[in-house]
Amino acid sequence: MSRKTPDNHLIWENMDSETVYDARIFRVRTVRRRRASGEHAPFISVDAPDWVTVIPEMPGSNGPEFLVVKQYRHGTERVGVEFPAGVIDPGESPETAAGRELLEETGYKASELIRIGAVSPNPAFMTNITFTYLAKGLEKVAEQSLDEHEILDVHIEEFESLQRQMGTDPFDSAITIQAWHLYLMASGRI
Amino acid sequence: MSRKTPDNHLIWENMDSETVYDARIFRVRTVRRRRASGEHAPFISVDAPDWVTVIPEMPGSNGPEFLVVKQYRHGTERVGVEFPAGVIDPGESPETAAGRELLEETGYKASELIRIGAVSPNPAFMTNITFTYLAKGLEKVAEQSLDEHEILDVHIEEFESLQRQMGTDPFDSAITIQAWHLYLMASGRI
Repeated sequence: MSRKTPDNHLIWENMDSETVYDARIFRVRTVRRRRASGEHAPFISVDAPDWVTVIPEMPGSNGPEFLVVKQYRHGTERVGVEFPAGVIDPGESPETAAGRELLEETGYKASELIRIGAVSPNPAFMTNITFTYLAKGLEKVAEQSLDEHEILDVHIEEFESLQRQMGTDPFDSAITIQAWHLYLMASGRI
Repeated sequence: MSRKTPDNHLIWENMDSETVYDARIFRVRTVRRRRASGEHAPFISVDAPDWVTVIPEMPGSNGPEFLVVKQYRHGTERVGVEFPAGVIDPGESPETAAGRELLEETGYKASELIRIGAVSPNPAFMTNITFTYLAKGLEKVAEQSLDEHEILDVHIEEFESLQRQMGTDPFDSAITIQAWHLYLMASGRI
């Protein structure tokens, strides 16, 4: 056990890869990789578009307040509450996607979008990045404009309520929790 | 926009499902679901075993210190630093898996394993749960005992170092960040 070691013994190099299933929202690939030792093996990669989460912050009488969206989630098969989020379209910048998803899901426009993080949703097999933006200067300019089969209720939550409930049902999405953590860091709270 | 609404309009009911790809570390299914309105559509579900992350905390001269593992990640195709983690085996309890992964990846045994969270890694399409345990009373009792193709370097990180770097490369796994957030909550820091 040491604090600093060269990483060469950890690295795998790509040999070849094959798409084995295309699910539209992601593509599954098998990738054969080899180590410096010569050992080689196949591994699974999941390619999804990059994602963006937006934390819409508004001044409230009791500290900041936040727009959240309540929706049925097809992984957990139940209703969850999360920050507005979505997929970055091909050729779209993360910031543009953040503004677009905020507008589509809530009808609000932000005068300021600040990138507060860019992390891997799951380094073990996901190849994409999930960006987090803080949205300020919010103004309601439109009605919701949702994708087909998307139904979302918009709610307002106070800072203390989110802080207390984060990590528990229905605020139990790892992506939402990491976004909230990045918000606490960016706002100097931790 | 309201604070409380019945959720019936959000709910989808399962009709039928079909496994479309089995990647060993997860299985991809298409599931047809219908809403109360009669509308129906197919959605993607990814079934993986439940996962566990362990935060191994030790007393240090400068506040608590933590065991972390540095390893090549096949999703991001680079080296990342995370807490010990892994897959819960069939029939295994999350707590047993936490102790086992800690022992296999670091050689340490914990006298106390405290569950500090159980969340969805990705509610949009993952059906599994990722548990987080705080491990205390650590003692080195063995050498690493890793899975085939697993190579991990074990490091010690001080609280302040993790707090400062969390969310940035190489500490940029959403699963690791949410685990750290749950630790800050459980230890009364936020």
